[in-house]
Amino acid sequence: MIFQNGETIVFAGDSVTDCGRKRPYGMGLWEGLGNGYVRMVDTSLAIDYPERMLRIINVGESGAASKDMLAHWEQNVEKCNPDWVFVMIGANDVWRQFDEPNLDNSLLMPDCYRANLEAVCERTLPNVKGMFIISPFYMEANDNDPMKKRMVEYAGICKEVVEKYAEKYNIKYIDVQEDFDNHLKYRYPSYISWDRVHPNWVGGMMIARKILKAIEA
Amino acid sequence: MIFQNGETIVFAGDSVTDCGRKRPYGMGLWEGLGNGYVRMVDTSLAIDYPERMLRIINVGESGAASKDMLAHWEQNVEKCNPDWVFVMIGANDVWRQFDEPNLDNSLLMPDCYRANLEAVCERTLPNVKGMFIISPFYMEANDNDPMKKRMVEYAGICKEVVEKYAEKYNIKYIDVQEDFDNHLKYRYPSYISWDRVHPNWVGGMMIARKILKAIEA
Amino acid sequence: MIFQNGETIVFAGDSVTDCGRKRPYGMGLWEGLGNGYVRMVDTSLAIDYPERMLRIINVGESGAASKDMLAHWEQNVEKCNPDWVFVMIGANDVWRQFDEPNLDNSLLMPDCYRANLEAVCERTLPNVKGMFIISPFYMEANDNDPMKKRMVEYAGICKEVVEKYAEKYNIKYIDVQEDFDNHLKYRYPSYISWDRVHPNWVGGMMIARKILKAIEA
Amino acid sequence: MIFQNGETIVFAGDSVTDCGRKRPYGMGLWEGLGNGYVRMVDTSLAIDYPERMLRIINVGESGAASKDMLAHWEQNVEKCNPDWVFVMIGANDVWRQFDEPNLDNSLLMPDCYRANLEAVCERTLPNVKGMFIISPFYMEANDNDPMKKRMVEYAGICKEVVEKYAEKYNIKYIDVQEDFDNHLKYRYPSYISWDRVHPNWVGGMMIARKILKAIEA
Amino acid sequence: MIFQNGETIVFAGDSVTDCGRKRPYGMGLWEGLGNGYVRMVDTSLAIDYPERMLRIINVGESGAASKDMLAHWEQNVEKCNPDWVFVMIGANDVWRQFDEPNLDNSLLMPDCYRANLEAVCERTLPNVKGMFIISPFYMEANDNDPMKKRMVEYAGICKEVVEKYAEKYNIKYIDVQEDFDNHLKYRYPSYISWDRVHPNWVGGMMIARKILKAIEA
Amino acid sequence: MIFQNGETIVFAGDSVTDCGRKRPYGMGLWEGLGNGYVRMVDTSLAIDYPERMLRIINVGESGAASKDMLAHWEQNVEKCNPDWVFVMIGANDVWRQFDEPNLDNSLLMPDCYRANLEAVCERTLPNVKGMFIISPFYMEANDNDPMKKRMVEYAGICKEVVEKYAEKYNIKYIDVQEDFDNHLKYRYPSYISWDRVHPNWVGGMMIARKILKAIEA
Amino acid sequence: MIFQNGETIVFAGDSVTDCGRKRPYGMGLWEGLGNGYVRMVDTSLAIDYPERMLRIINVGESGAASKDMLAHWEQNVEKCNPDWVFVMIGANDVWRQFDEPNLDNSLLMPDCYRANLEAVCERTLPNVKGMFIISPFYMEANDNDPMKKRMVEYAGICKEVVEKYAEKYNIKYIDVQEDFDNHLKYRYPSYISWDRVHPNWVGGMMIARKILKAIEA
Amino acid sequence: MIFQNGETIVFAGDSVTDCGRKRPYGMGLWEGLGNGYVRMVDTSLAIDYPERMLRIINVGESGAASKDMLAHWEQNVEKCNPDWVFVMIGANDVWRQFDEPNLDNSLLMPDCYRANLEAVCERTLPNVKGMFIISPFYMEANDNDPMKKRMVEYAGICKEVVEKYAEKYNIKYIDVQEDFDNHLKYRYPSYISWDRVHPNWVGGMMIARKILKAIEA
Repeated sequence: MIFQNGETIVFAGDSVTDCGRKRPYGMGLWEGLGNGYVRMVDTSLAIDYPERMLRIINVGESGAASKDMLAHWEQNVEKCNPDWVFVMIGANDVWRQFDEPNLDNSLLMPDCYRANLEAVCERTLPNVKGMFIISPFYMEANDNDPMKKRMVEYAGICKEVVEKYAEKYNIKYIDVQEDFDNHLKYRYPSYISWDRVHPNWVGGMMIARKILKAIEA
Repeated sequence: MIFQNGETIVFAGDSVTDCGRKRPYGMGLWEGLGNGYVRMVDTSLAIDYPERMLRIINVGESGAASKDMLAHWEQNVEKCNPDWVFVMIGANDVWRQFDEPNLDNSLLMPDCYRANLEAVCERTLPNVKGMFIISPFYMEANDNDPMKKRMVEYAGICKEVVEKYAEKYNIKYIDVQEDFDNHLKYRYPSYISWDRVHPNWVGGMMIARKILKAIEA
Repeated sequence: MIFQNGETIVFAGDSVTDCGRKRPYGMGLWEGLGNGYVRMVDTSLAIDYPERMLRIINVGESGAASKDMLAHWEQNVEKCNPDWVFVMIGANDVWRQFDEPNLDNSLLMPDCYRANLEAVCERTLPNVKGMFIISPFYMEANDNDPMKKRMVEYAGICKEVVEKYAEKYNIKYIDVQEDFDNHLKYRYPSYISWDRVHPNWVGGMMIARKILKAIEA
Repeated sequence: MIFQNGETIVFAGDSVTDCGRKRPYGMGLWEGLGNGYVRMVDTSLAIDYPERMLRIINVGESGAASKDMLAHWEQNVEKCNPDWVFVMIGANDVWRQFDEPNLDNSLLMPDCYRANLEAVCERTLPNVKGMFIISPFYMEANDNDPMKKRMVEYAGICKEVVEKYAEKYNIKYIDVQEDFDNHLKYRYPSYISWDRVHPNWVGGMMIARKILKAIEA
Repeated sequence: MIFQNGETIVFAGDSVTDCGRKRPYGMGLWEGLGNGYVRMVDTSLAIDYPERMLRIINVGESGAASKDMLAHWEQNVEKCNPDWVFVMIGANDVWRQFDEPNLDNSLLMPDCYRANLEAVCERTLPNVKGMFIISPFYMEANDNDPMKKRMVEYAGICKEVVEKYAEKYNIKYIDVQEDFDNHLKYRYPSYISWDRVHPNWVGGMMIARKILKAIEA
Repeated sequence: MIFQNGETIVFAGDSVTDCGRKRPYGMGLWEGLGNGYVRMVDTSLAIDYPERMLRIINVGESGAASKDMLAHWEQNVEKCNPDWVFVMIGANDVWRQFDEPNLDNSLLMPDCYRANLEAVCERTLPNVKGMFIISPFYMEANDNDPMKKRMVEYAGICKEVVEKYAEKYNIKYIDVQEDFDNHLKYRYPSYISWDRVHPNWVGGMMIARKILKAIEA
Repeated sequence: MIFQNGETIVFAGDSVTDCGRKRPYGMGLWEGLGNGYVRMVDTSLAIDYPERMLRIINVGESGAASKDMLAHWEQNVEKCNPDWVFVMIGANDVWRQFDEPNLDNSLLMPDCYRANLEAVCERTLPNVKGMFIISPFYMEANDNDPMKKRMVEYAGICKEVVEKYAEKYNIKYIDVQEDFDNHLKYRYPSYISWDRVHPNWVGGMMIARKILKAIEA
Repeated sequence: MIFQNGETIVFAGDSVTDCGRKRPYGMGLWEGLGNGYVRMVDTSLAIDYPERMLRIINVGESGAASKDMLAHWEQNVEKCNPDWVFVMIGANDVWRQFDEPNLDNSLLMPDCYRANLEAVCERTLPNVKGMFIISPFYMEANDNDPMKKRMVEYAGICKEVVEKYAEKYNIKYIDVQEDFDNHLKYRYPSYISWDRVHPNWVGGMMIARKILKAIEA
């Protein structure tokens, strides 16, 4: 497993990451880490690597789009001085285009999204041991669904951004959409999410497992 | 408009009908009728036919499947001695097959659904001026979505039940799925519903308008 | 219908407009628009013109008199950069003269009311495609009732203000008092309002219908 | 003052009487008597006749019409074994005819109202030292208002019932409508009531004063 | 009655005055004036002098001693620009000496109390039509009770302060202790107060009546 | 100390005993015993006699007079099969005569009180190792205060009842009034009680100390 | 994995099992299964065996000792007609002997515990495919701690009961104490539990993993 | 007893001291002092020395480690101008090392702890009559428990700090760990604390008794 004793790991994202974490930083006992995939990752590491002291911090913000994550990057992420950073963002960039199409969503378009992702990468990669970009996802089996298509497009941007920096820096792409797609061959979306965006425990643990695999835990 | 002064109209159904109505009977001032399509129908009639006194009663029950509606028919509907009865049921019969597929859903299958519908028709039709069966619906554009297909199948059962009794009795079928299908050509489902089952105001008013048209209001 | 794709429409007013809207701006999903006539207008337009993206914003403020609306005009209305503006104000200017006659109500008198209305017209009309002034109203049938008389007087001021600017600008007067007066020939005021000021759904939908007619929807 | 040391006085009525009284009987310290006219009468008597111990009991029931008061008469009134009984009922009998005209209000009609009043008089008068019937009232100045007219008609029934029994028994009629009519020559109804039915402190103290005068306090 | 149409009357004091009044100024409809003697005075005047518009304002502050009242005098009283001012203060100055004798109560001693009272008199009397100082009181019959003695001593200071200014200004002393002493000949203190400091309705109305008498109402 | 390992000790009484105990029996961890003198006795014994397991049970009932305690004796006390029983009752028997003198208090008179006390003694004494009657008390220094006098009279009845049975049974009288009287030579009643009936911690610990002395702890 | 499509699996136990499950049966969507190890087992199975429909039911009861579990066995377990049954009980049998040693704990002694376990085994084993008894545990590293020793003794009883029936029936013992003991070599108990009885997520997932291993998942 | 009439005594510490005290200073009536050992000390002194007025102030802060106590020393302690100061700190310095070992706990190490203690001693001792350092404690009998060992180490630092200043100043060490150790020979930790850190009443009173002995009460 790649995290070493004493390292700090920060998870940034939206409500899928947040899950009721403590403010201003999601860490510590009780519900400090929230009740989502971050907590599950922390729990698994605590069981399997009890001898390593890992400072895992959840800075997810419910409702955040990529522009919001960027705006709060210094306060939320850089102040933690992390060794490793995880980012899962984009669901709200996409969702607002579908559930509030009449509002002003110009800052959520693909170019902005890409720029926001690149911005956090560029200011972060030189200062950390590694970074993981988790794909935004949509728990819908139909690949022709317009929101699914758009989400896959944004996940593609994630992958391209990762590839752009991967030569020079330690940055990896984690594709959780494929896991959800696999699962949806057997179960209907409402089994794992009431709105196809927020995963329940099943979805959360699928994300956690994928992350654990990515860090070789 | 077909309702005459002094008549009693009862709306039976599930949470789409209920919408926070008063107990034991959803009627009267304030939020008595709930905040869904029943309230919208009542409001429109009150504006357009202020000289007719219509006793509109909402007996929808959140979470009810067709077996529950039948079980409470005497208490909920017959005690009101209605002139007209509206039924919109089946969403929960179908939904549970998809979001809780591992539980025992044997009483929600098509045969049971058809039998429940027929049971309420047979004990009701001889005693009322007319009955309307509103199709259960699913706010999803993709006709190949498995839950959409199943819901359409149940709507088809509604239609068949109506046709079975329509020769002898005044019973009509109201197809609201077609209205939602039309709307979804322009907007994404999450614009009108967070879970594709419970309509927000837009969906509620679409149902209300369809009912108003059916009663020639 | 006069609103075109992409336009912004702002509704300013008091509690009859507010109805629990979101802060700081009443827009977006869920209860963002509140539960009154603004929501009903938005709902009807969404059904009938799903292909047009209309940004409807509710900036009503419970308890506001015309002086309060003017004081918050920049923050509430101008910051939205609207194409169309609706104003329904005056109920509190009048009401306080009757339910708190012993307090200092000097800023609520007809001259102030007229001045406040003119002020918002003058700074707004040059910058928008059109403006609609909805009459304040009182749900009381007796035209000799002193508060009804006063409210009619204030509605008259609205009409005069509209006429003053109508030659040069696109500004229209919407008289909802006449609709309430008509309805009250059949039903008693307490059927549509507990205090003759705040309409329930019936009154709200009457206002919404009148607005929809005014915008040729 | 007519109440003697050790006597029990019961006040029956609707929400105007109830005002948050304690259950099952409105008596005793703190808010036991509620916060309406009954409390004000009790307070005045406690100040002016501290040497007389008077057991004053409030059995008003919010929402009660005359049929409800009669139905609970044994439990509410007779179990208290009162020396004196006050009744103020009828506001809900009348109000429902105006705010819920479409519901079944047949048991609220004048004949029922009169019969209910007579029923409580006949079973009570032989067993008490005296009874006072307080007129139902409506805080509206316009005598041509249809609900005002109806309320005055019901107050007239009260008066007739009192006259019917007054020869044989000690029963008196208390007309509070005239006090409200007088006050409304100076102030608008919303100054003393938000719905013209429920008095605020001003209205409550007007009722209390009238009762105190009637009992020669 | 000495208050004329359009005059402003301010009541300053502690929790006996406050009684849940609205902030920042206790005035207006509903519970604006609180539920204590100020409300009762306002109610009586509204009934008896409906043709006079009196702006009655409650600025009582729960827990205030005379030093607190003085500290807030500009904000609470002078900003209201009153014609008449009522002051009832001192209960907390005295009470703290008995229930928290171990804390630092040096600013609550008689000299400070007298100085505080004189300070508000001197800055207020030149600018108002009149001022009334209501005695602090203690609902205890035993004149040898140490807290009763102390309260009577403070009431005496009130009286002396009034006498000092009465030659030059319109200032009067209202002695409510004598009313409570009279009442306590018949009833035990816990009948009118749970702690002998906060009056219930009976005590509140006794104060209100005494004030009404003082203003010749 | 007289309690032996494994014994059950029950405390019966009113709100002074209850203090928020658990239902149906006040025992066990957390706030099971309430927060009054019973908890303090239990705490002291747990510290000083950790080797003895004592089952202490609080069955005090807020608001109970002696008639209520007797009515619930089987359910509250006898079902616990106690070795030792403590009773502190009478405060409400006396208090109601002073704060609600106008209600029917016939069952609270001295004869009833004595009879109720004797009844619980007679059915209990033959079955227990010992019984303690704690005097009801009133935290008022003035022996001429009418409620103090009455309370002392009731405490006297307690003492007489104890003396009546003391020859044959192990029953003792605990006089806590004398401790409060002593304390009130130095501090004012409101220092230890807001209403002179409910002791705060100081009063509670005085009772606990007196009990501990009585049981030779 | 041993569970086959369509099978019903019931988990009985105390608060460690319960974790806020739905009543009367812990199953279905949302928080139906609670938030403890049962939910984690269900989640893992749903991910790894999506093609198998497993009806997992949580009937844990916070606070239950073995006698309570037995008393509710018919209602809680047998009514579910399970194929597989898991039992984790005994923590409260042991705990009460340490935190409430002075109360009557006779029904929690080892003999009763063994008898209760045997009773549920005997009435259940003939009717199910298999049964798993999970050891009660105590998150304390010190084997000489008296409560740890007692808990290990009770776990030993579990093991003996399993061995007694294992020849004839499919019953297995799951020892989670050894996992906690291992973990406590690295971390202090308060890292995984505030009271050494209720596991947080780390402890819950350790139990879940052990169960998953036992069922060959 | 060493405290003289009129002296101020301040108790600083963490949640064991705080116990719900009033803000900003824990003093005065009702729950001002919180419900822990400070209240118990105050209560005992009030009973035994009613003639001495002692200003006891609780400035404990839940969650505070020694660095937090030092940071707030001026605001919390010095502003009170105390004659006597009690300090009980260190539980959180130690606890965090065991329940959140993965977070940054560098400021909680022994050297920092010692420095913080010395800092408050040096700035306080010259200005007070005396100071008492109460040992932090852990309610665990096993002396080999790692957290117990660490707590004893920190208590040892307390003792050393006291000894360092005791020659020149009036400063004393109070060892409450020995009392808990004694008690734990008879009862299990969960009898007096749910987490071995926060004492219930039994533990609180043991601390209070030790303090009372130290001040010769």
